[in-house]
Amino acid sequence: MLNRLCIIGVGLIGGSFALSLREAGLVREVVGVDRDLENLRLAEFLGLIDRGAASLEEGVEGADCVFIAVPVGVMPAIFRGLAPLWQNDTVYCDAGSTKRDVLAALESVFGEVPSNFVPGHPIAGAENSGASAARAGLFSNRRVILTPVAGTRQEALELIRTLWESVGSRVSLMEATRHDQVLAATSHLPHVLSFALTAMLGKHDEKQEIFTYAAGGLRDFTRIAGSDPAMWRDISLANRDQLLPLIEEYRDALADVAKMLADEDADRLVHLFADANQARKRFIDQLDK
Amino acid sequence: MLNRLCIIGVGLIGGSFALSLREAGLVREVVGVDRDLENLRLAEFLGLIDRGAASLEEGVEGADCVFIAVPVGVMPAIFRGLAPLWQNDTVYCDAGSTKRDVLAALESVFGEVPSNFVPGHPIAGAENSGASAARAGLFSNRRVILTPVAGTRQEALELIRTLWESVGSRVSLMEATRHDQVLAATSHLPHVLSFALTAMLGKHDEKQEIFTYAAGGLRDFTRIAGSDPAMWRDISLANRDQLLPLIEEYRDALADVAKMLADEDADRLVHLFADANQARKRFIDQLDK
Repeated sequence: MLNRLCIIGVGLIGGSFALSLREAGLVREVVGVDRDLENLRLAEFLGLIDRGAASLEEGVEGADCVFIAVPVGVMPAIFRGLAPLWQNDTVYCDAGSTKRDVLAALESVFGEVPSNFVPGHPIAGAENSGASAARAGLFSNRRVILTPVAGTRQEALELIRTLWESVGSRVSLMEATRHDQVLAATSHLPHVLSFALTAMLGKHDEKQEIFTYAAGGLRDFTRIAGSDPAMWRDISLANRDQLLPLIEEYRDALADVAKMLADEDADRLVHLFADANQARKRFIDQLDK
Repeated sequence: MLNRLCIIGVGLIGGSFALSLREAGLVREVVGVDRDLENLRLAEFLGLIDRGAASLEEGVEGADCVFIAVPVGVMPAIFRGLAPLWQNDTVYCDAGSTKRDVLAALESVFGEVPSNFVPGHPIAGAENSGASAARAGLFSNRRVILTPVAGTRQEALELIRTLWESVGSRVSLMEATRHDQVLAATSHLPHVLSFALTAMLGKHDEKQEIFTYAAGGLRDFTRIAGSDPAMWRDISLANRDQLLPLIEEYRDALADVAKMLADEDADRLVHLFADANQARKRFIDQLDK
């Protein structure tokens, strides 16, 4: 049970975390900090937080836990703001979509990753954002990856693990590098591919009105191209060293498909498509587990 | 009102067309032909057809309309089988996902596209197939593109248009080449991209269990990679001349994204992602219209 939780960035993730803990009766008071004051007022109105704070200083005052849920590109500025306010007996954590850059930002501000900071990532995004998108069930049965370092305090880690589990998440521990590698393949690459395809088809549509004749497959495929551009700029830049080789590998895979088509190599094509069928089945089985 | 409708290929499309017309009371008797006898028995059992025929000859006997819903790779063989049975007062139509190759197959068998053949394509696929996937509402509010040629008989075209409209479809007329161009962009390219990505991630997963940590975005993105491999081999080969330049254009678009990432060009990245946002909105608006 937390006495006072401070949420920095009361959007989809921060707002849903606050709401889930409040509904579970695990927090007495939630204070919100957000640079978008309209969003902060909305978060109050929607009951995600008890009150919005006028400053970072007011927000973290007396908090036993500070949850940072801002786009990864904003993290360094938040850490610099928090540094003079840092409390040894408060537990800090984040929800950034990439982890090595969060650790690097902490090191650059604090000289090392503070022992009372627990880096984490709930795999529960959506193409909607802002306080209005927050909901209590968002993390139910979702994976959360925590990437503590050698110096992370055990009781801080246990507190954050317990909070996530009490809102229904399934917590895994992982090294930050492995996290970034896995997410590059399963999330960042698909997002970049969807953005690139949707932008390209958008240009074709302007000339040819092709979207009129599109079906459900394209609706699914382009859904994640509705995600927030600034957030995905930050994520893809932060994880570009993992993302770039995957984009290159995928371009090679497409060159290979193009060759099968040009050669009319029906056998290799059907094998590739059947391999994809199998992988899709395995993926769905793992999702449903 | 049809007296006897013959469905060649009683799968998702053929079965759903039969069921929809039966439920609308627009056909007295439906006869099915399918090379998969188990599927044909299932179609009878499910009430998609009144009876399965033992041969193409028995199937088309006395039919006033013949609906051909087999994978495009099988069409030439069907046309060769139909040629000696061809009836001048019967109306023939198809539901092939590509149209120029269907016209070419007709020309190669009949010397020209028969005037009582109406080429068409209902844009209502799904990743499921077979008689068990058929349902009456499949074509409701879906687009159907008909690609008649100069010699197509007007009353044949009107009959097929009326049938599609009476099962709830919105019918457009288009040249076969334009159809193949539009569908290459909105359907065939996304399918090939999804197959290629899913197969590639499947290989990564074998080593790293990445699918365990994947989220909803990947589920949507890979859904169409569950589509039938043989059907998509046929489609992508049949339309390869339209598909290949699009794959090349998309590879170039990805090379451009990779350059933005390597150059850490945040401005161009966010513009690209915002363009995709806009295109996605336009697409959804057109879908919902």
